[in-house]
Amino acid sequence: MSGYGSSKFYRIFKIIVRVRLVKSLGLLFILFLSLCLGLFAWHKKANAAELEITDFAPFFERYIALGQAISIFNWDIETGVAPVGSLETRAKTIAVLSAELFSMSTSEEMGNFFKAVERAIERNTADDITLGTCQILKREYDKLTCIPADEYKAYSELTTIAAHRWREAKGENNYGIFSPYLQEIIDYQRRFINYRQRAGMVFENPYDALLDDFEPGVTSQKLDVFFEELKASIVPLLHNIMSLETDTGKSHDILYREVPIQVQKNVSELIMKTVGYDLKRGVLRESAHPFSMGLGQSDVRITTNYHPNKFFASFYSVMHECGHAIYEQNVAKELEGTILDSGSYMAIHESQSRFFENVFGRSLEFWKGIYDDFVIAADGHFDDVTAEELHRAVNMVRPSLIRVEADELTYSLHIMVRYEIERMIFNIPDLKVGDLPALWNEKMRDYLGVTPATYSEGILQDIHWSLGYFGYFPSYALGSAKAAQIQSAMKKDFNVDAAIRALDVATINAWLTDKVHKHGRMLNSAEIMAQISDKGFMPKYYIEYLSRKYAELYKISH
Amino acid sequence: MSGYGSSKFYRIFKIIVRVRLVKSLGLLFILFLSLCLGLFAWHKKANAAELEITDFAPFFERYIALGQAISIFNWDIETGVAPVGSLETRAKTIAVLSAELFSMSTSEEMGNFFKAVERAIERNTADDITLGTCQILKREYDKLTCIPADEYKAYSELTTIAAHRWREAKGENNYGIFSPYLQEIIDYQRRFINYRQRAGMVFENPYDALLDDFEPGVTSQKLDVFFEELKASIVPLLHNIMSLETDTGKSHDILYREVPIQVQKNVSELIMKTVGYDLKRGVLRESAHPFSMGLGQSDVRITTNYHPNKFFASFYSVMHECGHAIYEQNVAKELEGTILDSGSYMAIHESQSRFFENVFGRSLEFWKGIYDDFVIAADGHFDDVTAEELHRAVNMVRPSLIRVEADELTYSLHIMVRYEIERMIFNIPDLKVGDLPALWNEKMRDYLGVTPATYSEGILQDIHWSLGYFGYFPSYALGSAKAAQIQSAMKKDFNVDAAIRALDVATINAWLTDKVHKHGRMLNSAEIMAQISDKGFMPKYYIEYLSRKYAELYKISH
Repeated sequence: MSGYGSSKFYRIFKIIVRVRLVKSLGLLFILFLSLCLGLFAWHKKANAAELEITDFAPFFERYIALGQAISIFNWDIETGVAPVGSLETRAKTIAVLSAELFSMSTSEEMGNFFKAVERAIERNTADDITLGTCQILKREYDKLTCIPADEYKAYSELTTIAAHRWREAKGENNYGIFSPYLQEIIDYQRRFINYRQRAGMVFENPYDALLDDFEPGVTSQKLDVFFEELKASIVPLLHNIMSLETDTGKSHDILYREVPIQVQKNVSELIMKTVGYDLKRGVLRESAHPFSMGLGQSDVRITTNYHPNKFFASFYSVMHECGHAIYEQNVAKELEGTILDSGSYMAIHESQSRFFENVFGRSLEFWKGIYDDFVIAADGHFDDVTAEELHRAVNMVRPSLIRVEADELTYSLHIMVRYEIERMIFNIPDLKVGDLPALWNEKMRDYLGVTPATYSEGILQDIHWSLGYFGYFPSYALGSAKAAQIQSAMKKDFNVDAAIRALDVATINAWLTDKVHKHGRMLNSAEIMAQISDKGFMPKYYIEYLSRKYAELYKISH
Repeated sequence: MSGYGSSKFYRIFKIIVRVRLVKSLGLLFILFLSLCLGLFAWHKKANAAELEITDFAPFFERYIALGQAISIFNWDIETGVAPVGSLETRAKTIAVLSAELFSMSTSEEMGNFFKAVERAIERNTADDITLGTCQILKREYDKLTCIPADEYKAYSELTTIAAHRWREAKGENNYGIFSPYLQEIIDYQRRFINYRQRAGMVFENPYDALLDDFEPGVTSQKLDVFFEELKASIVPLLHNIMSLETDTGKSHDILYREVPIQVQKNVSELIMKTVGYDLKRGVLRESAHPFSMGLGQSDVRITTNYHPNKFFASFYSVMHECGHAIYEQNVAKELEGTILDSGSYMAIHESQSRFFENVFGRSLEFWKGIYDDFVIAADGHFDDVTAEELHRAVNMVRPSLIRVEADELTYSLHIMVRYEIERMIFNIPDLKVGDLPALWNEKMRDYLGVTPATYSEGILQDIHWSLGYFGYFPSYALGSAKAAQIQSAMKKDFNVDAAIRALDVATINAWLTDKVHKHGRMLNSAEIMAQISDKGFMPKYYIEYLSRKYAELYKISH
């Protein structure tokens, strides 16, 4: 049955079979292994492809908490709680958290979120909040992904220290303390613009890259037109007013009488109550430069500062910051806990602060309405003054050095000075920080006819540049202009003058909430202005507002 | 040349070759693929295996920044800045950050760090800071990895809200506002103990798991012995003193005279200056319950609270918190920016606060030394009082209701009340929060002979339980005992009485810095006590200290 031959063949066959079996098993094993490894390798990607929008909730919770942590550290520093000796280490802490936020903003997970939103859009299951969130974060993502993370971290650390040095420099009237930091910040921003351009973003003017951060779609070309239009009406109006033989003695007296800080604090309480700032979800503290800070609608804080002989500076800074804060407090409840629970871009935010500060707070109706309560809160310091005299004083036109103390008419000229210098900084590569004070003084002389005697009253007056906020200032002028347009639109719906006279802020805030506040960051500036007027933003309302207001105040033909 | 047969064979051969070639190629391809995937799969692990300790620097920067963010949010709430309406959302923020910190503490990256340290130990390249860091984090890692992350997050959120409810409950003398939260916290802690036991940690008594959080190695068995020993000397001493016909009228008058808050604030300034608390790296604010909070040596803050007729309560709370703060301010510079830049475990921390509050601040030498400056700062409120009378007043023994206002002698009895209740809570599963007020009152009556008339003066007086700090209280008594031993050791090196009399805190702080402060978290309690005495911690010094002190004060035989 088994001859040699057959036996030999059988053995060979067995060997072949064995070899084949081993090979096959090996093959199978290798196949299995590679399948496993392949599955493992694609696991993450596959997983990412299956992620639903709700899966990103913990990611956004961390994202929001980190942002709030950065804010609270800044608040701690700005309100003077953090010990001076800790500022360098606090700057480091803020830098680490900002780097972490940067890293989240530009992370693979963020990218996966965008993909999940895309899939939801395809399936028609994306809700408005998700779409709004995605739109804002995608814009940020595109802007940030072109900046190296290390560089952004160093920049963030720099601005925290720079803000401190700015404070020192301003206190000591010593530009040299701050200027090296300013130069560094400018160098970073110039590089950041380059990174964006290299990443394919197109800006007609390099400065537009920075303008776009605070107000998407705003360009220096558009601003040139806006400011030219403004200049064409403000400057003649200003000359007209300055040529009048107006007795401003009483107004001077009112504006600069000494008011004890405790009395000023009591008046701040009255203002906050009057404009409907909810102190259960807000708090007022003091800082070098007044600001507002929102940690979501349940916690929107403001600051001011008090000087015994600059009572109306604190008065209107509180009204201004309240305008910002009321905006964020009135965001729709359903946006709470999302990144949309805040205000839209800067010019809209400024339109709300300007509305309360100027349209509301510098109107004759306001002064008539608040007069009795004001006189009581001011504790005898303004018993001899009428509502009309207060109204005239707080609207006294006088070219001056300090932006935040400027009257409504000359205010935009202060902004033009900053706008034009910023535009130069980012268009003239060899312009150095050493050149800026002279430039500042020259432009102040040209537009306002006044020249600062000190750095503190000149180029060092504002915190913005120390924080790297180039491109921010124009929002103030745009905000004022939008506030005027808002009032005009509001007048179509109810008697605004009567509401102000009655201090009926409930009606005013309900209107603002409906058109502006409730949307939070769901709508951008253009979309919000489209809620106000079919034609969107138009500067003419501002020019009309200023012309009418000052014609009435100074009894000149309009 | 090519017959059918050969041709056929040739074709078959070619097919076989082809098949084999295809197979071989396929095999090679599969081999290559699996190699790639294999490499990819092991890449991370391989990478982790190559990580050096320095590679973890960014990880620890984030870890420290997150911890500081949690602290600063708590500071913001506790010092009454955060608006009341934001407390729920702030609790959420803190919970999210705590969850993130928890996740880092128990992360794969943390595990990799431990492995990197192990490798460094094998190669003999691990430095002391790394070893110290690893030791603390490994302990925490082992404790935390047995608690589910979700549960820890919910617990963290709960304690933030509970602390707020406790404040409300205390203000309104309403235990019912707080008790449901307390029950929840206890339930969590009971579960946490279970998790640890299930993870193989062995505790003779369940409560020991919590004691170990604040003081490694301390057990209820050891504490039973400590407290028994203490009770055996304090209680007879207390009875002895109470039986004396001492006129305490003047002391009462001194302790409870009304002192305007502004004057108290001026005295706080004097105290902080006297004890060497560096205000460039520190700040004093107000809160419901005094506390200290360190964000690294450059920023160690304290709080107190002021009541017009409880002047010495704020006086000694400032001294107490200064003791904590000086400790953290004097940590070695080279530990800055590491997790070791803080104080060691609680009993050592308390020994430093007790040292300044009692050993230093309640001594006759201190009152003689500070007398002139004190009288000036107190602005006429203590002109009629001698240093000796002040010394006697602040050491007046009188069983009372409030722990933080207790004299040095009865203080430990207050701790015993809490210690025994905590031990019961974690040993008697069906003990409910509803049972605790009666238990509290009973024990107060037994040990101190007084019974609280209100919850606020009883079980609601301390914030600790609302934060989940069970096992913390014994540290206070241990700290007092260690402070006495520290003084005893100090006396071998220099004349402590003379130094206190001269308010020579430089000498005292230099000694404390050398033995205790500079080590930060490098050494645990036992290691620090070994620096103080060859025999480590011994309660007898405390008993001797108390006996001698009160014998002298009350002129009784010692």
